[in-house]
Amino acid sequence: MLKGNCVIAQSGGPTAVINNSLLGAVEAAYRSEAIGEIYGARNGIMGILAENFIDLRRQSPSTIKGLKFTPGAALGSCRYQLKKQEDFEKLLNVFRKYNIRYFFYIGGNDSMDTAYKVNKLALEEGYDLRVIGIPKTIDNDLPLTDHTPGYGSAAKYLATIVMEMGIDLKCIVTSTKVVIVEAMGRNAGWLAAAAALARRRQEDVPHLIYLPEVPFDTANFLNDVEEAYRRYGTVLVVVSEGLVDKNGNYIFNDTTTVDVFGHQRLGGVGQYLVNLIESELSLKGRFVLPATCQRSAMHLASRTDAEEAYHVGRVAVEEAQKDRTGCMVAIRRLEGAEEYSCTYELVALNEVANREKKMPRSWINEAGNDVTQAFINYARPLIQGEVAIPYHNGLPAYVDIV
Amino acid sequence: MLKGNCVIAQSGGPTAVINNSLLGAVEAAYRSEAIGEIYGARNGIMGILAENFIDLRRQSPSTIKGLKFTPGAALGSCRYQLKKQEDFEKLLNVFRKYNIRYFFYIGGNDSMDTAYKVNKLALEEGYDLRVIGIPKTIDNDLPLTDHTPGYGSAAKYLATIVMEMGIDLKCIVTSTKVVIVEAMGRNAGWLAAAAALARRRQEDVPHLIYLPEVPFDTANFLNDVEEAYRRYGTVLVVVSEGLVDKNGNYIFNDTTTVDVFGHQRLGGVGQYLVNLIESELSLKGRFVLPATCQRSAMHLASRTDAEEAYHVGRVAVEEAQKDRTGCMVAIRRLEGAEEYSCTYELVALNEVANREKKMPRSWINEAGNDVTQAFINYARPLIQGEVAIPYHNGLPAYVDIV
Repeated sequence: MLKGNCVIAQSGGPTAVINNSLLGAVEAAYRSEAIGEIYGARNGIMGILAENFIDLRRQSPSTIKGLKFTPGAALGSCRYQLKKQEDFEKLLNVFRKYNIRYFFYIGGNDSMDTAYKVNKLALEEGYDLRVIGIPKTIDNDLPLTDHTPGYGSAAKYLATIVMEMGIDLKCIVTSTKVVIVEAMGRNAGWLAAAAALARRRQEDVPHLIYLPEVPFDTANFLNDVEEAYRRYGTVLVVVSEGLVDKNGNYIFNDTTTVDVFGHQRLGGVGQYLVNLIESELSLKGRFVLPATCQRSAMHLASRTDAEEAYHVGRVAVEEAQKDRTGCMVAIRRLEGAEEYSCTYELVALNEVANREKKMPRSWINEAGNDVTQAFINYARPLIQGEVAIPYHNGLPAYVDIV
Repeated sequence: MLKGNCVIAQSGGPTAVINNSLLGAVEAAYRSEAIGEIYGARNGIMGILAENFIDLRRQSPSTIKGLKFTPGAALGSCRYQLKKQEDFEKLLNVFRKYNIRYFFYIGGNDSMDTAYKVNKLALEEGYDLRVIGIPKTIDNDLPLTDHTPGYGSAAKYLATIVMEMGIDLKCIVTSTKVVIVEAMGRNAGWLAAAAALARRRQEDVPHLIYLPEVPFDTANFLNDVEEAYRRYGTVLVVVSEGLVDKNGNYIFNDTTTVDVFGHQRLGGVGQYLVNLIESELSLKGRFVLPATCQRSAMHLASRTDAEEAYHVGRVAVEEAQKDRTGCMVAIRRLEGAEEYSCTYELVALNEVANREKKMPRSWINEAGNDVTQAFINYARPLIQGEVAIPYHNGLPAYVDIV
């Protein structure tokens, strides 16, 4: 078993439960006989390059325990891609200097690419290093894993607020007839699709869902909204922020909307569609943009998701000590089981790196304006259970790593 | 004690806890020896005019109990103002027809005006009727009551998501430097102000808060944002949707922003300010529009608020049986007490009707970009405690009245 120090870093857009993965990794490292110092890198890979480390053995027990209930990347995150060879060399030099023999990177597609390249370089240079990727993203777009930690909590949050906004929309006889909710998800519709979990009966919200996987057609959209309006009286629509037309262009980029300074206005697809509905159907619309709430709502996290996030972190550290490297921890759903359950396995980083998993077309209905039952069956188990977070003075008692 | 039937109606924009007031009224009516039938009017006053009633004695116990945990107006609501004399006559005729002797109206300023006029007409026509208003609004803008049920829950929700978005913004080194959160509150800034509760230390979010009570000055705003950016590296700003300039005009209405069809675009103040920051300060912004989430987030309601909402409903029914009429139930905070506590009292409807209570200028700092400690001391008790709502299959188990 390789002995040495370890570094853990977090990267990309955070999730509600990303610190559960950090906690899983840290607690496994505490138990390890091989791992000496446990460094947390500030702001992902940038913190390693800058030798900006947090000593995770010297945090108070209450801070470490609080990671379980705290959203956001507690170590800090970044959107920085190593590109130049000298960056990789520098990284390896820092590893040598600190005798870092274990590198755990909690992130999405880009981060898995970085981890893959670091592992490759270490092999080439004969530096004995174990590199394991720990998946996270609310977008759920990592391949080779049934789903990605962070997704279940974002899905639960979105479905809940859509349910609540649906109750609000339906109960009041007012001028607003159509509500458009713009969900995160630039290239894959997993999160927007999860809003369908809010529906208990056919007439419930969301009435329509549009995803980037199906080219958006304005005429069809207006027809759909008009028909839903006739049927239900009010309409709630959920759209992914990254809807594209048949040529693959973002649909809100092809408007000529300009602001007071003459700049093209990227107001987002939600506002664009509300304007369209008001102009073309003369129905008053309202749009809702939960934005980063979706990836930080620890107050409504899924317990299933939080637990799985913990385990992918734990498994990463345990497997690395069995000399596994160049891998990402993946979640495998047990097929044919009566109740949902999953196991953890390792998949090769280069199979994951830079690849996006989109919604299968068969999980979207033929009209391209809703999901199918197969998707619901897939997503429902991921939002089960609640996390009882501590409150102090009326608000969540989140912690800081200092 | 006047004997007869009663009708309860809900009006205006709902809140997370408006059904707690319904529950309080219904349970008090169950205990009454004077009240016979308990009618719920569908969609406020419109349901009375249309004789569209729900029999609240014949709802299942689980539905009635579920009101405690369900947002939105369970009876349905409306934004319909009685104006014509014939509407009032019609209303009184319905009351006569159904022998309705008690009228409880759960609503805001407009609804209190309606209740006042109905009471006045009944007196003039010698129809023995008891009319009591039950306050609700997330805007907290009703006069003569320390605060309004619904506000505490909206405040708790907004402060929590601002805290969570602040963690998200701070943890990731990315291009977004400024986040603008647009809070509800057209003419009064109470809700936006409550975001300040999220702040535990001086450097915490929100860094800046702008309210309709202080005329908005673009140059000052840009200076404030720039200074906060220099100090904190990232800036989170909360604004009321109804910000006005020194002439009292909504600030986002004086732009010349047009959509693809040449219509003036009412994208809201949040988007307008993000565009301004990007153009003038070259800082990348993001805007967040929680919209109706703020008035329907039962999943994060304040227990204090939910309990008070229940009691204003209960007190309304109890006081009506003591021959009080033409009043609204108000909340009075006990002065000088060590711990927050309050009592309920009746105030005259005509003193409340059509009047708005704005934030006192002394609870806003001199620069007009934050609140003072006096406001924090006022608002903090209102968000205390959580409501443990039941979950089913991963989502809140809200009920419907059918």
